[in-house]
Amino acid sequence: MAEQAPERAGRRGRGGGGAARRAERTGPKLEFARFIERNVPNFEILNEEALEIIEYNAETVLEEIGVNFVENPAALERWRQAGADVQGERVRIPRGLARQLCATAPSQFTQHARNSERNVVIGGKNLVLAPVYGPPFVRDLNGGRRYATIADFRNFVKLGQMSKWLHHSGGTVCEPTDVPVNKRHLDMLYAHMTLSDKPFMGSVTEPSRAADSVEMAKVLFGDQFVDDNTVMTSLVNINSPLTFDSVMMGALEVYAAANQACIISPFIVGGAMAPVSVAGTLTQVLAEVLAGVAYSQLIRPGAPVIFGAFVTSIDMNSGAPTFGTPEAAQITLGAGQLARRLNLPYRSAGSFCGSKLPDAQAAYETANSLNIGLLSGVNFMLHACGWLEGGLVSSYEKFVMDADQLGVLHRLAAGIDMSENGQGMDAIREVGPGGHYLGCAHTQANFKDAFWKTSVLDYKPFETWEEEGARDTVALASARVQKMLGEYQPPAIDPGVVEALDAFVAKKKAAEPDSFM
Amino acid sequence: MAEQAPERAGRRGRGGGGAARRAERTGPKLEFARFIERNVPNFEILNEEALEIIEYNAETVLEEIGVNFVENPAALERWRQAGADVQGERVRIPRGLARQLCATAPSQFTQHARNSERNVVIGGKNLVLAPVYGPPFVRDLNGGRRYATIADFRNFVKLGQMSKWLHHSGGTVCEPTDVPVNKRHLDMLYAHMTLSDKPFMGSVTEPSRAADSVEMAKVLFGDQFVDDNTVMTSLVNINSPLTFDSVMMGALEVYAAANQACIISPFIVGGAMAPVSVAGTLTQVLAEVLAGVAYSQLIRPGAPVIFGAFVTSIDMNSGAPTFGTPEAAQITLGAGQLARRLNLPYRSAGSFCGSKLPDAQAAYETANSLNIGLLSGVNFMLHACGWLEGGLVSSYEKFVMDADQLGVLHRLAAGIDMSENGQGMDAIREVGPGGHYLGCAHTQANFKDAFWKTSVLDYKPFETWEEEGARDTVALASARVQKMLGEYQPPAIDPGVVEALDAFVAKKKAAEPDSFM
Repeated sequence: MAEQAPERAGRRGRGGGGAARRAERTGPKLEFARFIERNVPNFEILNEEALEIIEYNAETVLEEIGVNFVENPAALERWRQAGADVQGERVRIPRGLARQLCATAPSQFTQHARNSERNVVIGGKNLVLAPVYGPPFVRDLNGGRRYATIADFRNFVKLGQMSKWLHHSGGTVCEPTDVPVNKRHLDMLYAHMTLSDKPFMGSVTEPSRAADSVEMAKVLFGDQFVDDNTVMTSLVNINSPLTFDSVMMGALEVYAAANQACIISPFIVGGAMAPVSVAGTLTQVLAEVLAGVAYSQLIRPGAPVIFGAFVTSIDMNSGAPTFGTPEAAQITLGAGQLARRLNLPYRSAGSFCGSKLPDAQAAYETANSLNIGLLSGVNFMLHACGWLEGGLVSSYEKFVMDADQLGVLHRLAAGIDMSENGQGMDAIREVGPGGHYLGCAHTQANFKDAFWKTSVLDYKPFETWEEEGARDTVALASARVQKMLGEYQPPAIDPGVVEALDAFVAKKKAAEPDSFM
Repeated sequence: MAEQAPERAGRRGRGGGGAARRAERTGPKLEFARFIERNVPNFEILNEEALEIIEYNAETVLEEIGVNFVENPAALERWRQAGADVQGERVRIPRGLARQLCATAPSQFTQHARNSERNVVIGGKNLVLAPVYGPPFVRDLNGGRRYATIADFRNFVKLGQMSKWLHHSGGTVCEPTDVPVNKRHLDMLYAHMTLSDKPFMGSVTEPSRAADSVEMAKVLFGDQFVDDNTVMTSLVNINSPLTFDSVMMGALEVYAAANQACIISPFIVGGAMAPVSVAGTLTQVLAEVLAGVAYSQLIRPGAPVIFGAFVTSIDMNSGAPTFGTPEAAQITLGAGQLARRLNLPYRSAGSFCGSKLPDAQAAYETANSLNIGLLSGVNFMLHACGWLEGGLVSSYEKFVMDADQLGVLHRLAAGIDMSENGQGMDAIREVGPGGHYLGCAHTQANFKDAFWKTSVLDYKPFETWEEEGARDTVALASARVQKMLGEYQPPAIDPGVVEALDAFVAKKKAAEPDSFM
């Protein structure tokens, strides 16, 4: 089992301290699970020949077609010096060069949290789960669909902190649209740093905001700690096909230089930003990631990065992206194999769905993606809970519904206990033909931890369920959201650190006028 | 792709004939998919050592503890003659004997349908999908939850016939509670035989009803055809733990003697009918299936059988069975490996859920089971659509929702097209950095079949969806149910066969008084 006992006082970053330890001893018990360490194999959908074809084709794309680094003369110069053929903004990379540059990227890395018990190791057999990222809207059962605010943002950070199976606080859990665009990142980071003690993500919407993120992290963790350790993992999208814009690359340059981690992730709606075929999409994904990761290593060899693949298919009737589809599953599985052959941590899958409501469609699509994500060897799953309506909406109810299902992944990944106790021969001997196991010694000794337990779903008899109001999953989840927000208590933090963070945010906010563009 | 062109006139069993061929040429086109032939590997959760432990332990169970064959002196005599140690009703089977007896069971077999285009091959890399089996209640959006009637039964057979991704008409798609218990099987078989041309299941509720099933099949297919071919696959449950009752064994005896197929299937709520541990449950499942399949081969060596595993876990608070859980997934995966090592076709997984409504809970649980079922190498998936409320309810809406998701399984199982067209290099060359693929030649040539298409789910923009009534999945599915039942047309059948079936049913019904017990 990948679960771990609740936190003990012990080693920790600067953010914790004595107050935190006291709070831990006296506060209400908060259950949390350690990141998943898989004890099951990965599912390998592509054979060796297919993998070699895709790898060969990706190198052909880089060499013949190349990639564009847009409005970024420094990047072009770096590529030229590395041996690429640069013409205008087009960078053609000789066969083998990108893969060679990728070799300095670590196969796994630790992202530190201010509570060291929440540190995550990204890569290897591990799976780290982080919440939904990016939606401008939120939805809940009572309030319906509306623009997200900073109050919503804080609520989602609190729900993340309270969610046992979630290892990471994420980044833009929703867009706080009531805060000026050029100051949002400060309030978002402040919320993650103070309302959660799980690891978090930095801003990527401007290179200067990435720099602010690093500075704020230094306030929280201390300058030296951030110089020596990775404390943020941030999301750098590639403008597929084959285009690296200066905003995202600027953020990558800041983070890589500071030894902070980035997910380098093609953002693909298949059929629009990549070929309609799975193998063609995998080829483009690999070419793009090779170029992006290689570029990160040109900034700083050894900078931690993640092989990303955000891939959906398209509904050819409406042009809408579609989720939880078999094509997305195949790409997720295949890209995992490609990432492992590059020795890179892998990011894909999530609570993806196209549905407008947290209904059966949403759940089919999400479960398809979550299951395939686990089996494809994903190491970092962004959007692991709360995603709705193609990523336009963060759903309160779906956040806790999905987060509950993440427990299923933990248990499945733990593999099958083949110990003598797991074999259960004594139980079979004790019970014998025609008996039943409920009262036998083996059941008594094991029943408490024998099965994954839901915190949301209903198993009651029909009559009881009906008497209790015949609630569907959304109604049950709504009640759980209220309960969790009601019981939330902020994790202990050194008041001096909070003061310093307050001062940093105030200074930054005062330094420029508000902008909502 | 495992899809096949719509039926052509051609070879067929007696049930079709000239009228059927004419109807096919003039009737409305009915899309259907051939059974899945996997082009992807199975997921192997257990390593060799674990498999050997479970196999060793299962033999220990058979040898030391044994199984009970209840109220069945003939079975005890067969076991004695085969070399088992029989004491009272307890049958202890020497190590290796059951496995040796199982060796005569075929690794795959063809189940014939009256339309030979609907024949299914059960075993190997194939997956045959059949609908829900057994619920005494039905539910739909307008009518709510109520006792099932023969009218409901006929509706579900019609929906099954209309469902593209469903290969099999199933058996007791719901219990027609308005028909006397001792005559139900006649009306159910009549509905499958006349309203569908897909393969179906026989009755197992009394040995005499199994015999009636074989007789009715002979009316439909002809005596000689049924003697020579398998035309029914029926569900024989084992009373776990380790008990074989005379009703189920009586049905098995009838079918095996007639060379008709049976699923031999432990029915296990883990923690109640088997140990609370996964490895312990797998051990008991294997022991039970070994004994059951061996017994089928004592009746008739070579009789077609399927290694069944119906396994859920239990909610230790309420005692209710739970579905779509990680423990069930592990057992489904492990049992698939055990079945393959026995060279037997494998039955497991389905649209399992504990939810009272076809809501998100139902869909999470169902999608978990469907995905794992595909990857575990299931050859025959009973309950592949329509299951609700722990099997108490056949849901009209969930039937079409799940049946739609079965298309996802088809596509995922087809594997990744690595042809030159699939590689899509021309598309990447044509579009280049910063372009888009919607209009490119490769997309134009491939978009129609590039992606799985839903018949139920909604991908429309939020505004359109809202204008159309903001319907959830159940509302969308309800509309689809009405449309399918409205458009249903019975498959052509020789009127002489119908007359003969009518006469058979009338004679059988007249022969004994109604019983509702």
